[in-house]
Amino acid sequence: MRGTVLYGPRDIRFEDRETPKIEKPTDAVIRMAATCVCGSDLWPYRGLQPINGPTAMGHEYCGIVEEVGSAVKSVKPRQFVVGSFATSDNTCVHCRYGYQSSCVHREFMLRAQAPFLRVPQADGTLVPTPGVPSEDVVPSLLATSDVLGTGWFAADAANVKPGSTVVVVGDGAVGLLGVLSAKQMGAERIIAMSRHESRQKLARDFGATDILSERGDDGVAHIKELTKGVGADSVLECVGTQESMMQAIQSTRPGGFVSYVGVPHQVELKGEQLFYTHVHLHGGPAPVRRYLPELIDLVLKGTINPGKVFDLVLPLDQVAEGYRAMDERRAIKTLLRP
Amino acid sequence: MRGTVLYGPRDIRFEDRETPKIEKPTDAVIRMAATCVCGSDLWPYRGLQPINGPTAMGHEYCGIVEEVGSAVKSVKPRQFVVGSFATSDNTCVHCRYGYQSSCVHREFMLRAQAPFLRVPQADGTLVPTPGVPSEDVVPSLLATSDVLGTGWFAADAANVKPGSTVVVVGDGAVGLLGVLSAKQMGAERIIAMSRHESRQKLARDFGATDILSERGDDGVAHIKELTKGVGADSVLECVGTQESMMQAIQSTRPGGFVSYVGVPHQVELKGEQLFYTHVHLHGGPAPVRRYLPELIDLVLKGTINPGKVFDLVLPLDQVAEGYRAMDERRAIKTLLRP
Repeated sequence: MRGTVLYGPRDIRFEDRETPKIEKPTDAVIRMAATCVCGSDLWPYRGLQPINGPTAMGHEYCGIVEEVGSAVKSVKPRQFVVGSFATSDNTCVHCRYGYQSSCVHREFMLRAQAPFLRVPQADGTLVPTPGVPSEDVVPSLLATSDVLGTGWFAADAANVKPGSTVVVVGDGAVGLLGVLSAKQMGAERIIAMSRHESRQKLARDFGATDILSERGDDGVAHIKELTKGVGADSVLECVGTQESMMQAIQSTRPGGFVSYVGVPHQVELKGEQLFYTHVHLHGGPAPVRRYLPELIDLVLKGTINPGKVFDLVLPLDQVAEGYRAMDERRAIKTLLRP
Repeated sequence: MRGTVLYGPRDIRFEDRETPKIEKPTDAVIRMAATCVCGSDLWPYRGLQPINGPTAMGHEYCGIVEEVGSAVKSVKPRQFVVGSFATSDNTCVHCRYGYQSSCVHREFMLRAQAPFLRVPQADGTLVPTPGVPSEDVVPSLLATSDVLGTGWFAADAANVKPGSTVVVVGDGAVGLLGVLSAKQMGAERIIAMSRHESRQKLARDFGATDILSERGDDGVAHIKELTKGVGADSVLECVGTQESMMQAIQSTRPGGFVSYVGVPHQVELKGEQLFYTHVHLHGGPAPVRRYLPELIDLVLKGTINPGKVFDLVLPLDQVAEGYRAMDERRAIKTLLRP
């Protein structure tokens, strides 16, 4: 088969790789229904995160089980499955607390921008759908694998409740689905920070009540103005820079909640500054597996349509263009069809 | 009257000052029953926190109301009252959310190491006791004003619940009362980090089940060993240094809770490192006013005896020796009698 490999900054190749096969009894191999490019893939793509030589890319996936190892019990060949970007046994103590992305058997998935994928810890990682879903819901099911699960965690970790005033910092796919998640959790006011028209529109579709285009201190000032000087109850930080993190923290009311779900890049928090803000801070790699059954259910019932974040669909072998379009912000998120 | 003034590192003087009087209609003036020296007073005392010229010291207090301003309604002369180290109107939006130490009318108290004290925002800051309490409970009532309230917030902010495994980093009065608070909240296992015999003994009296003397990475390793590699549910950081903060964060299980209640001094948290720990982080100046009615009640019922942290009692005019004894760790906490 051919798969996606990053060789260096802006050097994505779709090239021959070995077709994955079962390596451990707990593995499954799936045939990809769809995969995609993640905002987090852009960090190494842009050379802002080092790679150790050529790196197989992709960690979002859904598809049909081809084969399972001898120890796999809960998924079978021919089932349609979705999995998280982090593998989990779903039985260890961290999994039982709902932090499957800190599972003792965690591996961060790679190699998913390809027609076939080996998934370790298949029993604890993959969630089968009831029957094989129709083509039109595949994008939304694919979204649950990372961006929706991550946006959902962002809203949950920021304690969004019915009636909350919420700010979402970041208008990438995760931020936009953070808006959708906050809406589902009953937020009354959802302020999305965005300066791109197509993203502003999608944010409104997903439930944003206000769109602000300022960043940094100006953004904070505008949020304070909108909240009568108080600050927001819940702020979802979906970027991962020093500016976005400080904007999030300073937009929150004392006793409010800040979540952060993108890997922070060169972010440093000064203890004394954080201390006087009185915020709650929680984040990390989203434990998507915790939410998958519920999110799959919401998609299949038609309650939510997170697949709308995919505004570019390409054949898998044009993956390099998929990266380029996102890098140049011509696309919010690229879906790839094998 | 005479009061306590810090002139520079280790230069505490007890000298003539103007006797406080009502300045605003919302003020009260109280006659001190007892006051004390706080661990946080040692930062400027040791020259580790700059001061702008001679600084009147003290922020823990309880006593009898002498006089109130014309707008004060909820406290009266001759009542015994306790107040927080942070003033609050107890009506603004932050107060209503329980963050009185971020009140829009917050002032951090100073000048309490003196026989009389002016308390701004008396209605929202002071809590009267039912009747004038007997002498023997005054130390415990004084403790509610800061160290107990702060230890209680540390346990609450770290989400201590019945059955929790708790670590307390720091064996100062706040840490020790964090142990007491965790015990009251039903913690099953309370691991206190301490290397001083008198403090270890008090920690055990207050409910610690394990005492560890290691610090930093060794402390983390020992906690991991005691918790079968998992880490603690709740960790109370009651020191405020880089080492203690990192020890707290690294001792916590993924999804667990870290609270920090001492002003952090030169603490910097790296975003990426924090991200992968998956901890919840919450802290700040303790909203003692939120807890005062409950804590006063627990003291008056005899359920708790936080006054045991005072292992040195001096006449107020010997305040300089009170600081010295704490600085040299001869005393855990010094109570001062006017």
